[in-house]
Amino acid sequence: MGHTTPTAKALYDVIARRRDVRAEFTGAPVADDRLQRVLGAAHRAPSVGMSQPWDFVVVRDLTTRQAFRDHVSAERDAFAASLPPERRSTFDKIKVEGICESSMGVVVTHDQERGGTHVLGRHAIADTGLFSTVLAIQNLWLAATAEGLGVGWVSFYREPFLRGLLGIPEQVRPIAWLCLGTVSHLETVPDLERHGWRSRRPLADAIHHDTWRA
Amino acid sequence: MGHTTPTAKALYDVIARRRDVRAEFTGAPVADDRLQRVLGAAHRAPSVGMSQPWDFVVVRDLTTRQAFRDHVSAERDAFAASLPPERRSTFDKIKVEGICESSMGVVVTHDQERGGTHVLGRHAIADTGLFSTVLAIQNLWLAATAEGLGVGWVSFYREPFLRGLLGIPEQVRPIAWLCLGTVSHLETVPDLERHGWRSRRPLADAIHHDTWRA
Repeated sequence: MGHTTPTAKALYDVIARRRDVRAEFTGAPVADDRLQRVLGAAHRAPSVGMSQPWDFVVVRDLTTRQAFRDHVSAERDAFAASLPPERRSTFDKIKVEGICESSMGVVVTHDQERGGTHVLGRHAIADTGLFSTVLAIQNLWLAATAEGLGVGWVSFYREPFLRGLLGIPEQVRPIAWLCLGTVSHLETVPDLERHGWRSRRPLADAIHHDTWRA
Repeated sequence: MGHTTPTAKALYDVIARRRDVRAEFTGAPVADDRLQRVLGAAHRAPSVGMSQPWDFVVVRDLTTRQAFRDHVSAERDAFAASLPPERRSTFDKIKVEGICESSMGVVVTHDQERGGTHVLGRHAIADTGLFSTVLAIQNLWLAATAEGLGVGWVSFYREPFLRGLLGIPEQVRPIAWLCLGTVSHLETVPDLERHGWRSRRPLADAIHHDTWRA
């Protein structure tokens, strides 16, 4: 009971090595079978009522990626302008995306209409559909890490812009642009911790017993 | 490039074995170091701006669990009543929760105020905070599977009820009640597929290249 199995050790190792990658992409191509395994892992995520509401748009086209990068760059500047001076000087050192340097973008989308009217388990909480798509992203992230690849989640964008750029229909919501690709290495300490943006919260603070501890 | 490493194989094995457990809980206690590893894996999830907006309320108290089960049971009946007859007879065979049979509940919550006003990466999309908490749930689920434990996500409940039951403050949102515990075994085919509720979508249908394929 008290010790981990080799499988659990391997999983914990992947979870600990996983990083949100910005600067370490090399841009080398990713073999298709490797990409299929990574997307296949995402596709095996749990989903409410087995609705599997996700899709994956693999973006290799450089013109599309440049257009997205320009949009993100403007949003990044707007965030920087909102910061008090001392936060801003910390933020200015942090690279927020590797859109063009990565091997590809993987845009993960959510279709709330997938699965029809009666989605088992979505009756009381409409967001459980959306949650399913996010669970798939974590599978993808861990699989990429285990395959020696890097993933960087870009969230400095407006959803209507990305929908328009890729021709995503109105009822489908883009949830994430993931930069995916080969990397020189994975950092051992998260970028935001290394650059002094924020430090980690102790696990014990996050655990409560039977009722919420104020 | 073309073949998987032992670490990737171990991860894919865990991803494939993971099930949404309802009927297989034995109720035997879980050793505390094992629980700590599972919650520690959740706590190592990525989070927007390193905000770590999640908390875990471990519910072992049986009176609390019985009250939650009674609430879920009423919500389950309301969903059943909304179904057309042929879907209803399929649904009636499906057990939707193991709240009292599992070793414990783990209620995962989300605090959108964690991390202060300027959360790096949440500027354009407020939901990225919520997404972080969901990523932690998938880490928890995979870790539990690797430890030989089962997890069942209960979503037939109203959030205000659960908030009241556990004394969760107003600004904190309960995201999931996870039944967690020892199991007799994990089914190899998901319950909803076994009972004919829904079948899986082929991976190829979920993959698009450069633009959305209608």
